[in-house]
Amino acid sequence: MDYRDAGVDISAADAAKDRIKRLARGTFNPGVLSEIGSFGGLFRPDFARYEEPVLVSSTDGVGTKIQVARAMGIHDTVGYDLVAHCVNDILVQGASPLFFLDYLALGRMDPDRVEAVVAGVARACQEFGCPLIGGETAEMPGTYADDDYDLAGFIVGVVDRRKALPAGVAAGDALLGLPSAGLHTNGYSLARRALFDGAGLSADTVLPELGTSVGAALLAPHRSYLAALEPLIERGRIRALAHLTGGGFPGNIPRVLPDGLGVRIRRSAWQVPALFRLIQHSGAVADDEMFRTFNMGIGMVVVVAPDDLHEVEHSLERRGETSFLIGSVVEGAGVILE
Amino acid sequence: MDYRDAGVDISAADAAKDRIKRLARGTFNPGVLSEIGSFGGLFRPDFARYEEPVLVSSTDGVGTKIQVARAMGIHDTVGYDLVAHCVNDILVQGASPLFFLDYLALGRMDPDRVEAVVAGVARACQEFGCPLIGGETAEMPGTYADDDYDLAGFIVGVVDRRKALPAGVAAGDALLGLPSAGLHTNGYSLARRALFDGAGLSADTVLPELGTSVGAALLAPHRSYLAALEPLIERGRIRALAHLTGGGFPGNIPRVLPDGLGVRIRRSAWQVPALFRLIQHSGAVADDEMFRTFNMGIGMVVVVAPDDLHEVEHSLERRGETSFLIGSVVEGAGVILE
Repeated sequence: MDYRDAGVDISAADAAKDRIKRLARGTFNPGVLSEIGSFGGLFRPDFARYEEPVLVSSTDGVGTKIQVARAMGIHDTVGYDLVAHCVNDILVQGASPLFFLDYLALGRMDPDRVEAVVAGVARACQEFGCPLIGGETAEMPGTYADDDYDLAGFIVGVVDRRKALPAGVAAGDALLGLPSAGLHTNGYSLARRALFDGAGLSADTVLPELGTSVGAALLAPHRSYLAALEPLIERGRIRALAHLTGGGFPGNIPRVLPDGLGVRIRRSAWQVPALFRLIQHSGAVADDEMFRTFNMGIGMVVVVAPDDLHEVEHSLERRGETSFLIGSVVEGAGVILE
Repeated sequence: MDYRDAGVDISAADAAKDRIKRLARGTFNPGVLSEIGSFGGLFRPDFARYEEPVLVSSTDGVGTKIQVARAMGIHDTVGYDLVAHCVNDILVQGASPLFFLDYLALGRMDPDRVEAVVAGVARACQEFGCPLIGGETAEMPGTYADDDYDLAGFIVGVVDRRKALPAGVAAGDALLGLPSAGLHTNGYSLARRALFDGAGLSADTVLPELGTSVGAALLAPHRSYLAALEPLIERGRIRALAHLTGGGFPGNIPRVLPDGLGVRIRRSAWQVPALFRLIQHSGAVADDEMFRTFNMGIGMVVVVAPDDLHEVEHSLERRGETSFLIGSVVEGAGVILE
């Protein structure tokens, strides 16, 4: 009996490792001091640029969006989703990315599948200046179905303590909403239930209101707001950010508000995209449930002092970023949708 | 239709989150600047202690050891395994832990199960002075069986660049082996196949040669060598470390050797523990396959200059750590087992 008899293919793992190394190398910057394949990834940050550097880290998965990827046979976008999600999560604290690691577990070690998934990770790492310095690829027959997998990511970034967010949020602050590209990485269990089981659609059903297939609309990559927001954070023009992920509006906006403050959101301030309306209709999902499960077309909420609103709107516009004035911070608690 | 209909229970997730927060708080030290539940975990390292601080990070899972945990109904040790594994991986680069994050994905959000798993993570984080500052707990019905789960971890540590390992390994250096507590976290697919399918044993079969049940022997927690080795690294008495995980001896020792060097290992230098002999016998596994799959009773290999050997052996002994002189570094390549 050998390891292969037990369902673990070490040669396939070695082949996968070689492809990962090549992809990861394309993301490296001068801070990276190690090759992929070391026990640990070594990174030397340029801490001299910071008065009081604070490390900010986050971990996330892409959840059952992977099941949509499987239905579509497209595996090189979920890695992008993962990195964009993590980059946004630390951006909320004011931090810029330093490096990234991924964990990929599969039912069967298929080097092509591994390469596709990691290619998505590497593409995003390159785009966001966040080298992929380590990872784990595990073959776990029994835990995962033969062609199924799970993917998690870990990011480390840095922020100067005096620039960390949230900071100074007050009643009267404006809320700007930045558009999402779709569901991003949450709500897929409900969306799949509503669209596939409820409405009997399939991933390749093309719908005019979506302008594409249901699967392609669901697979639209998670947007990162790093490029649009980093310069504004640097200039101290942002008081808080809320990344709308699992938990939607009520689950994420209050996390960055001080006690005694809530928000009012004007639902008429933006048009909820067709995909969300389709899910709601297909699954007969209540309004409240929609807003606490999905981002409803708003991927990031930006809290801005009234005096800075004009400058922030213009800066976003110059960078090609649309923004909607969706509400304001008020005395109270929670999220009031009007 | 709501999120619960789709198999995702947000209330159970909230209950789990509260328990995680309490467990994580018990691991905090003054470097931690955030609460669990922020978008990112904030950590301020004491970089003033380092001439040229380099961050060292690693990620890993516990593989199918989780299946043994399920068979035994014991879920509060795999988290300990995970942290010990990660701590050892960065120790190999000479680094001491700064902080930890975990990713736990389950078929069903069971707050008791989550609490047990994270309790293991937290216990190890406390023991190794490595606060748990973030994590993700994901309910993924469909990907995981109802009571199945997967667990990955992510560690960040720091090393002064001039103390990073490996450094200065030369032919003639001695190899010390430090005992493992069992399989640690790799080889479980083959071990389960050999013991359960091959020999027809079950997790609760008690065997005299193991002194316990097969399941308990398989579940023995991964040892960390941080306490034994950190002072020796600090004093510059270690040239390299190899953590024997997936890939066993040939897969791990050469990773820390310069080109042109290999190792000779004397197999008679230590007694291979009964569990490994039982696996080999049960599965009719070849010797080579055993050494490239399992740690065979040696969890960490320490490469020491001949002149420092005596001091290192004594230091380990004073800390209650057994060591075996298992071989030496030689001209050549790879691992020669004699």
